[in-house]
Amino acid sequence: MNAINVAILGASGYTGAELVRLLAVHPQVRMTVLTADRKAGQAMAAVFPHLGGMALPDLVTMEEADFSSVDAVFCALPHGTTQTVIAGLPERLRIVDLSADFRLADTATYATWYGHEHQAPHLQTTAVYGLTELARDAVAGARLVANPGCYPTASQLPLIPLLRAGVIEADDIIIDAKSGVSGAGRAAKEGSLFCEVADGINAYAIAGHRHAPEIEQGLSGAAGRPVIVNFTPHLMPMSRGILASLYVRLANGAGVADLRRVLSETYANEPFVRLLAEGQSPATRHVRGSNHCLMNVFADRVPGRAILVSVIDNLVKGASGQAIQNLNRMFGFKETASLEQMPLFP
Amino acid sequence: MNAINVAILGASGYTGAELVRLLAVHPQVRMTVLTADRKAGQAMAAVFPHLGGMALPDLVTMEEADFSSVDAVFCALPHGTTQTVIAGLPERLRIVDLSADFRLADTATYATWYGHEHQAPHLQTTAVYGLTELARDAVAGARLVANPGCYPTASQLPLIPLLRAGVIEADDIIIDAKSGVSGAGRAAKEGSLFCEVADGINAYAIAGHRHAPEIEQGLSGAAGRPVIVNFTPHLMPMSRGILASLYVRLANGAGVADLRRVLSETYANEPFVRLLAEGQSPATRHVRGSNHCLMNVFADRVPGRAILVSVIDNLVKGASGQAIQNLNRMFGFKETASLEQMPLFP
Amino acid sequence: MNAINVAILGASGYTGAELVRLLAVHPQVRMTVLTADRKAGQAMAAVFPHLGGMALPDLVTMEEADFSSVDAVFCALPHGTTQTVIAGLPERLRIVDLSADFRLADTATYATWYGHEHQAPHLQTTAVYGLTELARDAVAGARLVANPGCYPTASQLPLIPLLRAGVIEADDIIIDAKSGVSGAGRAAKEGSLFCEVADGINAYAIAGHRHAPEIEQGLSGAAGRPVIVNFTPHLMPMSRGILASLYVRLANGAGVADLRRVLSETYANEPFVRLLAEGQSPATRHVRGSNHCLMNVFADRVPGRAILVSVIDNLVKGASGQAIQNLNRMFGFKETASLEQMPLFP
Amino acid sequence: MNAINVAILGASGYTGAELVRLLAVHPQVRMTVLTADRKAGQAMAAVFPHLGGMALPDLVTMEEADFSSVDAVFCALPHGTTQTVIAGLPERLRIVDLSADFRLADTATYATWYGHEHQAPHLQTTAVYGLTELARDAVAGARLVANPGCYPTASQLPLIPLLRAGVIEADDIIIDAKSGVSGAGRAAKEGSLFCEVADGINAYAIAGHRHAPEIEQGLSGAAGRPVIVNFTPHLMPMSRGILASLYVRLANGAGVADLRRVLSETYANEPFVRLLAEGQSPATRHVRGSNHCLMNVFADRVPGRAILVSVIDNLVKGASGQAIQNLNRMFGFKETASLEQMPLFP
Repeated sequence: MNAINVAILGASGYTGAELVRLLAVHPQVRMTVLTADRKAGQAMAAVFPHLGGMALPDLVTMEEADFSSVDAVFCALPHGTTQTVIAGLPERLRIVDLSADFRLADTATYATWYGHEHQAPHLQTTAVYGLTELARDAVAGARLVANPGCYPTASQLPLIPLLRAGVIEADDIIIDAKSGVSGAGRAAKEGSLFCEVADGINAYAIAGHRHAPEIEQGLSGAAGRPVIVNFTPHLMPMSRGILASLYVRLANGAGVADLRRVLSETYANEPFVRLLAEGQSPATRHVRGSNHCLMNVFADRVPGRAILVSVIDNLVKGASGQAIQNLNRMFGFKETASLEQMPLFP
Repeated sequence: MNAINVAILGASGYTGAELVRLLAVHPQVRMTVLTADRKAGQAMAAVFPHLGGMALPDLVTMEEADFSSVDAVFCALPHGTTQTVIAGLPERLRIVDLSADFRLADTATYATWYGHEHQAPHLQTTAVYGLTELARDAVAGARLVANPGCYPTASQLPLIPLLRAGVIEADDIIIDAKSGVSGAGRAAKEGSLFCEVADGINAYAIAGHRHAPEIEQGLSGAAGRPVIVNFTPHLMPMSRGILASLYVRLANGAGVADLRRVLSETYANEPFVRLLAEGQSPATRHVRGSNHCLMNVFADRVPGRAILVSVIDNLVKGASGQAIQNLNRMFGFKETASLEQMPLFP
Repeated sequence: MNAINVAILGASGYTGAELVRLLAVHPQVRMTVLTADRKAGQAMAAVFPHLGGMALPDLVTMEEADFSSVDAVFCALPHGTTQTVIAGLPERLRIVDLSADFRLADTATYATWYGHEHQAPHLQTTAVYGLTELARDAVAGARLVANPGCYPTASQLPLIPLLRAGVIEADDIIIDAKSGVSGAGRAAKEGSLFCEVADGINAYAIAGHRHAPEIEQGLSGAAGRPVIVNFTPHLMPMSRGILASLYVRLANGAGVADLRRVLSETYANEPFVRLLAEGQSPATRHVRGSNHCLMNVFADRVPGRAILVSVIDNLVKGASGQAIQNLNRMFGFKETASLEQMPLFP
Repeated sequence: MNAINVAILGASGYTGAELVRLLAVHPQVRMTVLTADRKAGQAMAAVFPHLGGMALPDLVTMEEADFSSVDAVFCALPHGTTQTVIAGLPERLRIVDLSADFRLADTATYATWYGHEHQAPHLQTTAVYGLTELARDAVAGARLVANPGCYPTASQLPLIPLLRAGVIEADDIIIDAKSGVSGAGRAAKEGSLFCEVADGINAYAIAGHRHAPEIEQGLSGAAGRPVIVNFTPHLMPMSRGILASLYVRLANGAGVADLRRVLSETYANEPFVRLLAEGQSPATRHVRGSNHCLMNVFADRVPGRAILVSVIDNLVKGASGQAIQNLNRMFGFKETASLEQMPLFP
């Protein structure tokens, strides 16, 4: 449990900044390398003024990065380029990858959804999908952890235990998800402008979002057979947060109380995942800035159906927080290290 | 087509103010009576400064209201009290009621959902449910129009034609709806405070919202048999707007193209309802302040299913705008009178 | 008062779209040419879905624009290029220019603040600065109207009458202005992203904003001597609106009542400008979407000083609405034509 | 430096909840008593779901509160009642009071602004005004600390050192402040509703806000003579944050560089207060959730004047964070204990 040195590749995006914010209070992690190709040469505080006052190395290019004293890497680079970058890293480095590049075990599925062949299929076979609560031991032993997407985290945490327990049907799962704007990153796009997002909501990437195959992979594994889901994401005017409304069919003989029991047992001792008291409705504002996931189960008036709702902060449990949780597992640190802070409300 | 005098009962709420805003440019309507019991004696501009500069009568109590020269009444009073008030109005007055009091044809259903017997069942039998586009002729001849709720308007405009045409199944309809905060009215409630709503989202009244029986009434009529729906409303940080994401099962043999054709034909000549071009995703910000409803149909990756999205401004097409549209029908005015203004974006 | 044909140059920006929205109900204006170089070939509804349903010409490049049957031009192009474009327009066209290019009568001042020589100084001498209420007759006879900036409109409407009347000092005028994000236009810039603006505020362009010389020009004219102001703009999370807090020193012998009297007399019969009742605080949300300007005067606890507050919608009275008001003056239309709609609240 | 037990009086408001959130990670503070008269009997997690998962005592009334093992009290009660409550606490308890009750050393001034005589003038004489950075030693020895108001904190941190150094004039100080809505508390008031605040801004309590005498007390002390300020607060659509724009006159011979030097020297070694690099504009979003204060100085185009901008989170450095900072001083804990977390952005 000695302190380690970490590099953050792609530190100039929101997930990179969030790693820095959270790690600022980590007792065993020192950030010694921060890369950001287009902002290389700048201080982190110039790119993210809220991080001013911290003692941090300046941003460097990937080429300039010196990994000689680095123990672990957080990779927060864009999808697609990540494969090549990670393939080029020294073998001894342990890696948590926040991109989508190593999340799909089947590289053919990857090629279908991402439009090109996977560039590092040999690494893919070694990657562990890091939905921490459901893959704790595998993560601990992994060299390369594929950190789950934000939507998949919010969707799978409630659905996988229910499918495993056989209390819901694998068909007809409908995931209506609502996301804050930080999920789109810091790139200057018309669709992310304040005036284009404020005071409104719209669905996007309907039946075509790349998180669908990631969710289906997890649910298929839990159900023991191929699962196709309806996944419909919506963009709404908040900076952080994902709320997933999950509409499911009860398995023969199962009732809402069974669903409660399964989730209650699964997450009874978890520090970050919590089933709310009966009737309480999870709200994204109650997890803001934290690594928490809140969830609940509700009876549906339509016979034979149930409603699940789960919430996370997309930048924390949906990205940087879970990445640190995974690192903590990999290095034997306390799993909650640097993730203890409570949500910020209001 | 002479000008008429109207009274607005309950002018101090958001729907009351919205009636005034819209009617300000109506060529044939004069607002001669405005009631608001708790704010009686005040000028409308004191209660709603944005309406300053208009020549409007001061607010009076219901008791003080002089209906002698009034031709029509907009009733924007709370649910429950409305029945008694309307039962006491002079017989010659024509009425558009924005409350829920006369929306449910079956007074037993009313009693179940509202917790008390209906106080004016004899009037209920005469009330016309005013979803204008689908009840145009009945509205024209009505004395009392029950103006539809905001969620039911957004949900029924796409679903009723599809059920009538038999291209979707009546079972398993899932309505995931997202609403702006003005739907909760101007009452000072903790749950409507800025800090409690901003930068977050939550579901509420899950499987228990009173708009469910209203929607089911309309869909049952269209399907020709009793329909129960999943209706899950969400509160989100915008002032105006409702987006309904509708998850449906295709009827045997039907495809998404059939759904498009039915909606396209139904609303081809409508001034306010518009099916978007294929692939375009409706956004609430594109109807803000207008009486418009935008909708679209999308294929689902889950075989045999489709996704519908519709948007309205809850205070306009979902309340005051549709109320004026109904009044226009009742008095033979141009249906679009005072509703011509385009949405406000950004 | 025959109908006229207008062209909108630069129709793909927010002010262009706002012109279209407002003109949609103008009884004497037809929009026959819409230009937008980068979006040429597209339908306006593709660029601005909220304008779908209107019968509008497709967007064309400036080169493709056919001005043969056009009577008047709204120019909503970026600063700098506008001069050359307008210099090239047929002499018979009357023009309202929404850019800053013709606002500064002194082309040397222009060169200082914009970093290059003015390209059409001969046109500058003919341009009328169109702060309509204070330049009504000049506007009526103008060929080229320089439509005022948003901050200058909000600042000058209260300050100019007071300086003219000699009830405030010309020194030490402090203008602390707060603006919505649409003032930055629709360009995809990091600083205008939802996540960079939401839930926060900051000052920008401190002591260096290009609206300062425009304000100083107007105040100098009113004071009869050169005036330098403190102008500090702030960016805040709203789509529309400007609030200007004006801190002034009373002229010898003058009191707050004198300020009220001057403003009350100046704007007594104005349809769009209104002095609020004593003590009422103007709010931007009470002018949203309208061509209104609300203002008020307050005593300061600091002896010899007073506080003024004024609000406008930056896209309407601060841009497109005032442009239409000016066009209405130029063509002898009713000054309020197409500007009658009340503010949208909430 | 043994751990202590603290009571939070008034734990059901935003500042109470914020104390709990921050203290959750304090290594030496145990929260053993939480009071909230109207919510007594409830779990804290029922009142503030974001605090669910913490081991906290249930809420009790003041009468039920057992102070026998309590060492210190945070008092987050409403103004006015606080005096009596604190007067009734056991003498051995050390107290940080977040209300305004003990901030004004002159009880006559208190009576003027609060409309009634002070109920505990004997305690007032012992109270230390806890603007920590400027009263560090006095705080350490105090029994009763009056925690400064949010606006006064943001205003005095930059102004007091400059007045002490004699580089700005004490006359004509103009404070234009912008606040988030949480400053108004969690009470259900129409003016704090989402729809009444979103997408807008307004000034309020112009020349009459009760934080004015608090600011004037601090500035008078620094200037060595009575100071009256213009203090104009504005309400804007953000949950947290205060930005103060301060317009000052330079003292004879002083320049902006002198102001920079004074602030730089004053705050050079402060963990929470930071003068930004030249030209950088402080933004409230860069201190969100943290105990930080950022400030900067700018030259004014008006000769002889300068502009200062400072930002804090009103609930942290403007309330609960500074209260903990003061407690840390009083008990000899590390001053930054439980306040180390970086701001939350976006």
